[in-house]
Amino acid sequence: MGIFLNTDYLKGFVSESEIKALVPAIEGAHKDLHEKTGAGNDFLGWVTLPSQIPDALVAELMALGKEVQSHSEAIISIGIGGSYLGIRSTLEFLGGDQKIPVYYAGHNMSAIDMGRIIKIVENKRVTVVVISKSGVTTEPALAFRIVDAAMKRKYSGEELKKRVICVTDEKKGALRQIAQSQEYRSYVIPDDVGGRFSVQTTVGLVPLALAGVDIKAFVDGFRTGEKEYANTNVLNNPCYQYAAIRNVLYKKGKTIEMMASFYPNVQYVTEWWKQLYGESEGKGGQGIFPASTILSTDLHSMGQLMQDGMRNIFETFLMIDTIDQSMVIPSQPEDTDKFNCVAGKELDWVNKQAYKATADAHFEGGVPNLCITLDKADAFHIGQLYYFFEKAVGISGYVLGVNPFDQPGVEAYKKKMFALLGKK
Amino acid sequence: MGIFLNTDYLKGFVSESEIKALVPAIEGAHKDLHEKTGAGNDFLGWVTLPSQIPDALVAELMALGKEVQSHSEAIISIGIGGSYLGIRSTLEFLGGDQKIPVYYAGHNMSAIDMGRIIKIVENKRVTVVVISKSGVTTEPALAFRIVDAAMKRKYSGEELKKRVICVTDEKKGALRQIAQSQEYRSYVIPDDVGGRFSVQTTVGLVPLALAGVDIKAFVDGFRTGEKEYANTNVLNNPCYQYAAIRNVLYKKGKTIEMMASFYPNVQYVTEWWKQLYGESEGKGGQGIFPASTILSTDLHSMGQLMQDGMRNIFETFLMIDTIDQSMVIPSQPEDTDKFNCVAGKELDWVNKQAYKATADAHFEGGVPNLCITLDKADAFHIGQLYYFFEKAVGISGYVLGVNPFDQPGVEAYKKKMFALLGKK
Repeated sequence: MGIFLNTDYLKGFVSESEIKALVPAIEGAHKDLHEKTGAGNDFLGWVTLPSQIPDALVAELMALGKEVQSHSEAIISIGIGGSYLGIRSTLEFLGGDQKIPVYYAGHNMSAIDMGRIIKIVENKRVTVVVISKSGVTTEPALAFRIVDAAMKRKYSGEELKKRVICVTDEKKGALRQIAQSQEYRSYVIPDDVGGRFSVQTTVGLVPLALAGVDIKAFVDGFRTGEKEYANTNVLNNPCYQYAAIRNVLYKKGKTIEMMASFYPNVQYVTEWWKQLYGESEGKGGQGIFPASTILSTDLHSMGQLMQDGMRNIFETFLMIDTIDQSMVIPSQPEDTDKFNCVAGKELDWVNKQAYKATADAHFEGGVPNLCITLDKADAFHIGQLYYFFEKAVGISGYVLGVNPFDQPGVEAYKKKMFALLGKK
Repeated sequence: MGIFLNTDYLKGFVSESEIKALVPAIEGAHKDLHEKTGAGNDFLGWVTLPSQIPDALVAELMALGKEVQSHSEAIISIGIGGSYLGIRSTLEFLGGDQKIPVYYAGHNMSAIDMGRIIKIVENKRVTVVVISKSGVTTEPALAFRIVDAAMKRKYSGEELKKRVICVTDEKKGALRQIAQSQEYRSYVIPDDVGGRFSVQTTVGLVPLALAGVDIKAFVDGFRTGEKEYANTNVLNNPCYQYAAIRNVLYKKGKTIEMMASFYPNVQYVTEWWKQLYGESEGKGGQGIFPASTILSTDLHSMGQLMQDGMRNIFETFLMIDTIDQSMVIPSQPEDTDKFNCVAGKELDWVNKQAYKATADAHFEGGVPNLCITLDKADAFHIGQLYYFFEKAVGISGYVLGVNPFDQPGVEAYKKKMFALLGKK
């Protein structure tokens, strides 16, 4: 069990002495995170949250999940940003084979998508979970208006009350008011955890429990991360090494980080990661541009540029060691395509050879790359991986010299939009 | 009907005189494309293909589609790169509401995904379409081995023959041999059109016809593009203007182009575009890095970096003018969330205000942006848009000084992989 970092393909791009030179800065960042002495220190609740999540809350949510699964055929999850990506990332990583399907609303303003959601509300027995700290973010607020109206056309009284669950601020905000006036069930989002770090709070745990995810194993993964990545011996802490490596590469003009995986179930993990890193570091004219790619699909699209384009890119592979599904390549009597050389082998073995070939070819083509490998694609490992990336971006952002916990830039378009909408 | 280019938010970033300075280079590139006098001139069949597609072929494929729809519940489409992205991009753009669902195989080596495909073959009446010029590209070849074996366990004789369709080279290659020896139906991929330009050949037309797309309107869109974008008056040709703009911006250090849309059905269009631009221009240490984002979803993830990160980005918005689905925002008596200001409005109207706010905010934040608007999300307009982007990348690549029609870099990993697989 665990998460492993391979840095073989950084040779000639990142030296041990360059990493060592960053050790004092990383130790300072570690201290700032743990003693809350750095910028954005109001939003450091996530650092020690895993060990503080009450086991009773986990048990309560798993019981809630069983209840909802007993009376619902579908879940509508309403949220955007950190109230959307971590949920979807986890469910897709786990293979999409949950006990009840989850449909996502409130992360865009597509009338077509919303039309499909309303059909589901009309035609299936559903439970709605709406996730918003303030309740006034445009996309989820409008989606909840539309979905809540559809729910009220179908259900009323106690039946309605048991089918709408609010995850929101403890005391203030529009969604808290709605939960109170409508007597909807509700769960509290803590104040000291920002949206992009919130998947281990009720923001993630409530919808994941509804879908039937083993949130106990998920929280255990976070707890393992909290323990392992507190190691101040930087050279033995893969999380801090990752933070150091990307800072070294950034200083050398590698301004794009491509998160690449040969496992398509990782696609939304890369979307979650893009928010975490883009929003934490992309400010004040600084910050690596996070991009993502699913291979070998994209070797036949972005492969040419990766091999031979501008050399401003480094690559972080995300691999999975053990896959449960067996898929043996059959032999062909005529061997027309000349692939009998791999007949009898597992498809996943060929997939892993494709990774090796790609890492080697990109390295030779001038793209330094590293690899993070998870033992298995289960709830425990995705929990640990989330903590790995959260801790690493806290360190990485402080080393870069930014406040990794604010997002001043996202206000600009909101102000303009509210003006266009005539909203006070 | 049509496609429109808005360049208002380039003010101060791209001047008319900078565009005019590129006119001679663009006129030269136009001549090279139309007279086949430039690099890669063996692969220029796509330039005049639309007007040369026989109406009889279109009619034949639409009849084939009707036949397949009469005896199949699902289509398995096997292909990678240009034999995958254009098909998926078109079907998702059109809303995913085709006559029969299409499942994609052969674009990765995921055992989990392949396990799902085999279950579909076992449990539904299916038709398989396999698309490969050579028949020896690893991913589709292995997928076809596995799927073909499953088909043979279920079907035989004439029933099998009518359920497997090959799209491949006219004479040579492993898939042509297999089609002949197994007596599978087959269609020919022309020699003078590269994979990423092939959606208007049988590569796209066959599977799209099977799924029930109006390929006549689709081809008409291409034909309109062929006619409109042959205009040598650069300043009146939006396709050539787009090519000029991106070259001006690239020279000024805008090394990342973000294709952004407020319409989620456009997501795979941006993936198709990434292959077209990444593979055509990303070579010899040059070329804009193509990235994509779906809004307003990603405003809550990549929005911070777009507003306030490194200023090496420009943005190309892809908008749709008229949406068929009505979705009115309901009023709320209490107005808890203060959104009664938009009660009674269409959700798509709010979506378009979000675009305006974003374009304006990003421009003020130092991100130049342009906007391509399609009148409608139908088969005609996606055909025209594909031609727009194909013609523009031909011009843009020549102006940049690369051969936009080769892909030398994609061979590097293939060689290494074949060595690891023990393939001759």
